[in-house]
Amino acid sequence: MPTLYYAPGACSFASHVILRTLEANHGLKPELISVKLRQEDPTIHQVNPLGRVPTLKLDTGELLTENGAILPYLGDLVPEAGLFAPAGTVERARIQEWIGFINSDIHYAFRPIGRPEFYNVNTETHDVIRNQGRAHLTKLLNHIEKKLTNLTWAVGERFTIADAYLGYFLRNLARVNIPTDQFPAINSYAARYSALPAVIAATEAEKT
Amino acid sequence: MPTLYYAPGACSFASHVILRTLEANHGLKPELISVKLRQEDPTIHQVNPLGRVPTLKLDTGELLTENGAILPYLGDLVPEAGLFAPAGTVERARIQEWIGFINSDIHYAFRPIGRPEFYNVNTETHDVIRNQGRAHLTKLLNHIEKKLTNLTWAVGERFTIADAYLGYFLRNLARVNIPTDQFPAINSYAARYSALPAVIAATEAEKT
Repeated sequence: MPTLYYAPGACSFASHVILRTLEANHGLKPELISVKLRQEDPTIHQVNPLGRVPTLKLDTGELLTENGAILPYLGDLVPEAGLFAPAGTVERARIQEWIGFINSDIHYAFRPIGRPEFYNVNTETHDVIRNQGRAHLTKLLNHIEKKLTNLTWAVGERFTIADAYLGYFLRNLARVNIPTDQFPAINSYAARYSALPAVIAATEAEKT
Repeated sequence: MPTLYYAPGACSFASHVILRTLEANHGLKPELISVKLRQEDPTIHQVNPLGRVPTLKLDTGELLTENGAILPYLGDLVPEAGLFAPAGTVERARIQEWIGFINSDIHYAFRPIGRPEFYNVNTETHDVIRNQGRAHLTKLLNHIEKKLTNLTWAVGERFTIADAYLGYFLRNLARVNIPTDQFPAINSYAARYSALPAVIAATEAEKT
């Protein structure tokens, strides 16, 4: 059974939610190991030289990093769970399209707001960097709002690995002071996500 | 046959290279349409509301965006080309891992160097943003240098969809003034990439 290294509150939450789903409904018994980021935690540096999460340890001992690899791998591990789609289908490409967009654009749109020092150590510039970052993220959210309108989940009625990832970011907008009143579809999506048993279980586990 | 919308010099080059490979060796007859970015080119805005490339139009008329979706889709379209790996295998996950890393970390590591105004419109801050960006990209390149040492391509002896994407960035380091003498494995990788017939053909096509 695979072992997931995750950090509480980090984007490894997406892989954590998928493992909780497979545990509850499909008998997978994953091991879940909580690590600390940006503190040179030896637990994660031993398995991943960049010290990043998520990292998945396979039964063979091999290590897999990146949500963009771990989510599809877990989706294919239990195809009957219906969290992904068969290779070669447009539906699978649509799920991958969401994952690519979240992994690059959405993920990196949070950084200037949360970590302006990554771009400029001079603290006097941070308000400008944060404000430009909020304007850019708002533009992306307008695009997502349109895409989610009249949909239950990212690619239709079915919760997929893309939703495990998208929901993590969409329910964290308050953290970066983005007012969500303007995004009714995103708001109801985030509420549906937060009500999922696997999301509740992963949230509880990451609190401790 | 699929239609690819690409912009000369942009990261759509990765999908362009894969289509040229499939055209030369596997009889695919893709249509290739060159568009301009950041000039509100109506050609791309008609098919992609974010105005971005690559965008792939399928035979059904459906549109697919993101290298992270298009590359796997094309890999699965002609499995006998051996540019990807079967669903459920660790090798496939390893290829996806590279694509995730390139799509997020590498791609966004170029932005502060090439487009500092994206983070701060005040031009006086641009040198600091560019320099911090170069330091961060150099850190990622050190990691890639270690991974590529003693390998021909990203996951071994076989050229895959991950290489079409990785090669695009690794041969463009001079553009962002990163000295490459310190990275012998990256240098020889970039030279191998530039010598591929499909890369030569795509480069020529993007010049016109």
